[in-house]
Amino acid sequence: MSADIAFTELMEFQRQTEALAQVAGRLGWDQETMMPRGAAEQRSEEMAALEGVLHERRTDPRIADWLMAAAAEDDEDAAQLRLIRRSHTRATKVPSRLAQEIARVTSTAQGIWAEARAADDVALFLPTLTEVVRLKREEAAALADGRDRYDALIDDYEPGATAATLGAMFDRMRPRLVALREAVLGASYQPAPLQGHFGLEAQVRMARDLAATFGYDWTRGRMDMAVHPFSSGSGSDVRITTRVVETDPFNCFYSTVHEVGHACYELGIDPDYALTPIGSGASMGVHESQSRIYENQLGRSRAFTGWLFQRMSERFGDLGLPDAEAFYGTVNRVQSGFIRTEADEVHYNLHIMMRFDLERGLIRGTLEVADLEEAWNARFLQDFGVAVDRPSHGVLQDVHWSVGLFGYFPTYTLGNLYAGCLMQALREAVPDLDEALARGETRGATGWLRENLQRHGGLYTPHELVTRACGFEPSEGPLLDYLETKFRDIYRL
Amino acid sequence: MSADIAFTELMEFQRQTEALAQVAGRLGWDQETMMPRGAAEQRSEEMAALEGVLHERRTDPRIADWLMAAAAEDDEDAAQLRLIRRSHTRATKVPSRLAQEIARVTSTAQGIWAEARAADDVALFLPTLTEVVRLKREEAAALADGRDRYDALIDDYEPGATAATLGAMFDRMRPRLVALREAVLGASYQPAPLQGHFGLEAQVRMARDLAATFGYDWTRGRMDMAVHPFSSGSGSDVRITTRVVETDPFNCFYSTVHEVGHACYELGIDPDYALTPIGSGASMGVHESQSRIYENQLGRSRAFTGWLFQRMSERFGDLGLPDAEAFYGTVNRVQSGFIRTEADEVHYNLHIMMRFDLERGLIRGTLEVADLEEAWNARFLQDFGVAVDRPSHGVLQDVHWSVGLFGYFPTYTLGNLYAGCLMQALREAVPDLDEALARGETRGATGWLRENLQRHGGLYTPHELVTRACGFEPSEGPLLDYLETKFRDIYRL
Repeated sequence: MSADIAFTELMEFQRQTEALAQVAGRLGWDQETMMPRGAAEQRSEEMAALEGVLHERRTDPRIADWLMAAAAEDDEDAAQLRLIRRSHTRATKVPSRLAQEIARVTSTAQGIWAEARAADDVALFLPTLTEVVRLKREEAAALADGRDRYDALIDDYEPGATAATLGAMFDRMRPRLVALREAVLGASYQPAPLQGHFGLEAQVRMARDLAATFGYDWTRGRMDMAVHPFSSGSGSDVRITTRVVETDPFNCFYSTVHEVGHACYELGIDPDYALTPIGSGASMGVHESQSRIYENQLGRSRAFTGWLFQRMSERFGDLGLPDAEAFYGTVNRVQSGFIRTEADEVHYNLHIMMRFDLERGLIRGTLEVADLEEAWNARFLQDFGVAVDRPSHGVLQDVHWSVGLFGYFPTYTLGNLYAGCLMQALREAVPDLDEALARGETRGATGWLRENLQRHGGLYTPHELVTRACGFEPSEGPLLDYLETKFRDIYRL
Repeated sequence: MSADIAFTELMEFQRQTEALAQVAGRLGWDQETMMPRGAAEQRSEEMAALEGVLHERRTDPRIADWLMAAAAEDDEDAAQLRLIRRSHTRATKVPSRLAQEIARVTSTAQGIWAEARAADDVALFLPTLTEVVRLKREEAAALADGRDRYDALIDDYEPGATAATLGAMFDRMRPRLVALREAVLGASYQPAPLQGHFGLEAQVRMARDLAATFGYDWTRGRMDMAVHPFSSGSGSDVRITTRVVETDPFNCFYSTVHEVGHACYELGIDPDYALTPIGSGASMGVHESQSRIYENQLGRSRAFTGWLFQRMSERFGDLGLPDAEAFYGTVNRVQSGFIRTEADEVHYNLHIMMRFDLERGLIRGTLEVADLEEAWNARFLQDFGVAVDRPSHGVLQDVHWSVGLFGYFPTYTLGNLYAGCLMQALREAVPDLDEALARGETRGATGWLRENLQRHGGLYTPHELVTRACGFEPSEGPLLDYLETKFRDIYRL
């Protein structure tokens, strides 16, 4: 087989796999937004059948032959081969029996977790979680080849990252974040809460306008309601979801901008890459950098919130705040809270760091599921200064572990870190950024991100991609500097 | 391989195929209801990949081995084997190259057809239709094994039906329908049109109530808007769609009841059959019998429209009609018209008969695509007494041929015929039917249909199923008697 033919055949085969993966993604979207509740059982069987097809394709022995024979003619081809090799190696390392067992257990575990969380009953979830952890340990061991098992799982979401480097980075971040948290919570000035009534339809209209303001392409997407907002899809069909809490419009608005960040990343990738391995985001961390920079560095900036204050005042009437400056404080209010997904920029990474330590222990076997709740509560008290009042506010709050996502949490903080670096570079590249944001004009920022990062898809490794975009090696410094400057300013410290 | 093991393995394999077919169906639903317009091209590639998987499974050589070895222990197993054998034989007769070519051409043909219809430009569509007909002729020849090529296509939708028996039946029906049409249109009494304003949201609310009234199970379904209403899915996820024309609420209401009939059929099948070959409707004709009996024999009955008149008067105010009897006439107004999907009960089958003759000619090669428009217009004038004024009112009105559906049209009239027979049996079995319908109570009727027909799914052949349910061999007599009695009564003839 010639190198040319091998490459062409491999890419054709892979293209169909990518297309089927998109179908699986669409099915997941349907499940969270549209599916009638009585269809859950049948759906899990449909999903399992499709996952079976995908697994079979990813472990197809022809891939190894093609990879052996194929040669890359340019950087793009080389990146395609790198990602196919990665995926194939991973898929073949995990025995089919184990992959199927994980799929089966995690598909029912999510329902049990939801039930346990609703009932605040840890004991109801423990047997299932024990089973999930046992299977994920086994999978990690199969993937690790003697290396660190938790690293093997991280690598699924953030190629190249390791627990050692992440842990060291988190250790450098944690004291500065804890200090900032304490300073801010102890400050004499405290922003006022928002007042007013925020009806569902008016919130959704505003969310749609915010999505458009940040450049979301409605001809290749749509927005629906979901209990936990997410974005979904690659190529020319990338959908977002949102939710509405009538007392808290920022919940809807900023989760929308967050998902728009994810969606614009996918939609911003070079269309020539669609349905190929490099046609999706480079990693979960890079993905989160886009959602976070849209949501926080841009969306929660003084300049942009000035624009938002005007729009919200027009639509919702008196917000109980004297001016845009007060509104800026309100948007960025720092408050103690139990729930990660509701956390402000100062607290958020502290949530991640504790999950990182706990799940690393679970996978390495230094922490057992039976001891997890106690470990969670002790660590929460230590880092947040508050005792967890009930499991749904503690160890049962996140869906991740129930569906087998171990090694995923650290990518959230890595995303924040990347966002900090990218914002520093963006400010240098777009000097009139604040003037534009104050007019509700995001094109300069989103255009720079698309040009320097988004369009490349999976062409570069995550680290290489962010380094190229920023012009410097990513580190935690820019994020921490940004947070300290922003919050000391808001809290008049 | 023992007969037991062969059967078990075959059914397990088939179950996954059925699950994947459900996924394909869900994707089709998404395409018509939810998909962003910019996603069409990528979606066709996703769909093609999934169809490729399904085709590969349906032609899997192991199926022949399993079928050889497997033995049925009871009627259910025998029916499963019969349907698997049918599907496998069909799939292996058509060369993969041809199947792929048909999928490719028809996926783009639908868009071209829609464009041509919007522009009223037959010439725009002819090259594509010529290609589709060429491919379908080739497919029909592959399937026919020397038998009639059109029969081979009919058999896809209505196992056991042939052009000869259908043609003879249509020949018996046509003069009576033409005579009834002429009598009714010439009658001195003519029902009044509906008056009033019918807002979108109020129509959708009423449509939802109608769906519930006819027993649609919302926990296993949902209703969305679509340009051309359809129902979709089997097992525990069967969705319906509707549309709203603000001046004509019956369009929304009766298309909803029609789709509810289809959906209730699927939802009424024995849940033990889900994701097996006998877990869907027995044929397109039987399916249409359920949608039609819900829509027409029940939904447009004097008794039920009496109930509907009350509900609509409450919700929409004065309808410009003196009483329920006048409303009954209005619901059943017979009017000359060009469009099949808008046709009343008297005209509907005349539309089908002409399509049957034309498409039979196209497949057999006695009619060429270039001559189709002229043939259509001549026949329409002959049967309907009106000259077609533009292609979108004539040969371009239906999507079917663009997507390769040849042999499908006659199942609509077969469905009407079955509905006529079933209604006769139902009236005998449920003597107080009209009293119940007058109270908006459909359970007696729908319960009888579920018990005697729907629950069996594909257990029996279509002819056997309808014969068992009715207690007599189906024929066109009951339908024609019903139509003549009903419309002579309404039109005071």
